[in-house]
Amino acid sequence: MTRSTLVQHIRSKKNYLCVGLDTVPDKVPHSLKGFQDPVFEFNKRIIDATLTHCVAYKINTAFYEVSGAKGWESMQKTVDYIPSTHFKIADAKRGDIGNTSSLYARTFFETLSFDAVTVTPYMGEDSVRPFLEYKNKWTILLGLTSNTGSSDFELQTCENGMLFESVIRKASQWGTTENMMFVIGATQAEWFSHARILAPDHFYLVPGVGAQGGSLKEISLKALNKDIGLLVNASRAIIYAGSGEDFAEKAAQVAAGYTGEMAGYLEK
Amino acid sequence: MTRSTLVQHIRSKKNYLCVGLDTVPDKVPHSLKGFQDPVFEFNKRIIDATLTHCVAYKINTAFYEVSGAKGWESMQKTVDYIPSTHFKIADAKRGDIGNTSSLYARTFFETLSFDAVTVTPYMGEDSVRPFLEYKNKWTILLGLTSNTGSSDFELQTCENGMLFESVIRKASQWGTTENMMFVIGATQAEWFSHARILAPDHFYLVPGVGAQGGSLKEISLKALNKDIGLLVNASRAIIYAGSGEDFAEKAAQVAAGYTGEMAGYLEK
Repeated sequence: MTRSTLVQHIRSKKNYLCVGLDTVPDKVPHSLKGFQDPVFEFNKRIIDATLTHCVAYKINTAFYEVSGAKGWESMQKTVDYIPSTHFKIADAKRGDIGNTSSLYARTFFETLSFDAVTVTPYMGEDSVRPFLEYKNKWTILLGLTSNTGSSDFELQTCENGMLFESVIRKASQWGTTENMMFVIGATQAEWFSHARILAPDHFYLVPGVGAQGGSLKEISLKALNKDIGLLVNASRAIIYAGSGEDFAEKAAQVAAGYTGEMAGYLEK
Repeated sequence: MTRSTLVQHIRSKKNYLCVGLDTVPDKVPHSLKGFQDPVFEFNKRIIDATLTHCVAYKINTAFYEVSGAKGWESMQKTVDYIPSTHFKIADAKRGDIGNTSSLYARTFFETLSFDAVTVTPYMGEDSVRPFLEYKNKWTILLGLTSNTGSSDFELQTCENGMLFESVIRKASQWGTTENMMFVIGATQAEWFSHARILAPDHFYLVPGVGAQGGSLKEISLKALNKDIGLLVNASRAIIYAGSGEDFAEKAAQVAAGYTGEMAGYLEK
């Protein structure tokens, strides 16, 4: 998906919500357990219910890999089920030497038809480049993550400011605003304005709203740019809003709550 | 596998060789293409031929994921085929927020029966801890990798020396020499003695010998410790030593070449 198409979807739907499909097999409601692939059935219902309330879906690969080959099948079916109107993110946090990163890029952009994949920057430029070679596909590089461990290295002071600043500064040269985004966790609100100075025009993928406690209001006020420039993700808060048979309806209600709030920030 | 068992295997076999099963479907010899799972058949023959010449196998997940669910099946069968006398490494370079890292740990230590998994340190302590909670399983944290991109961040000067030094220093406090190793690339020979000062007793997993050009001699002389403390990996140089029907025999010959050399360094 191109940047202009993504921005167009956001403007017409008046939200920048990404729904995270972190589907735990054990949490799938009883009524779906009889299906051949309960995880996929769950995702299908969540997608059907939230489609009008979001612009993107994020699949966290760990939740599927834990079931082995069967989990990869559920992931494949889920990606295929999401319509091309929605931006599809593989939250895989991959990154390795060049020939290996090339295979990961092929995995998520060809074997699976994702629009974007999250990549970890530790190994540097040649571990990231192979992802950038795909046209109309996106590399979402970890900048400043939402977890407490971000203080161990990401917030460490290095040669050119903090490590995450160095990552954003360098990686902005490797990719463009048309094929690269950065992950900035919603719990890192104090750094948002700062990150916006480093990458004023890039999109950010923002996890950490909902279960992790980040404030949608604060990050929206600090980081929306002229092309919106934000995809805010909520996973558990949406897909597990209800645990009964009305789980999809409950998910849609919570998603609608976020998008209602977002529409307000977009109007400002 | 416990550290004492690993050290015992190394001492009795007189080598610290790890064979990397970076199996590309396209490179599997023609004679195996008729099998239901050519990748697994290839791996099986490589394992049979190299078993007496190594102490460990490393499976790079990218090479399997690129084939989707089918690839995960090949990986599962391959791990199951490796006997428990050999140390089994998932070269997966995972790492995410706590609840996600827990799932990755389950994936590689329970769904698949690996002894060890490579983990990327960028997100800090809480992204690494879940891997350390498994008894007799190993976390192999990226320290200084073999690729040129290592100069972008890993070799950047931060608060307490270079970033990779900071990673080794901090992470040595999270795990012990019984459940944590570090990746130090064979192409980084100039830093090996230095790394040994930071973590004198830990095992290092050393990729980059063979196709990437690292010197087995130099790293062995600089980094062997009282418990050996090294697992040196070669992938392409071994498994693609031959491209004909005698590929397994050729692989065994190259592996035997490495182990012969290693026996010499162990005697010193």
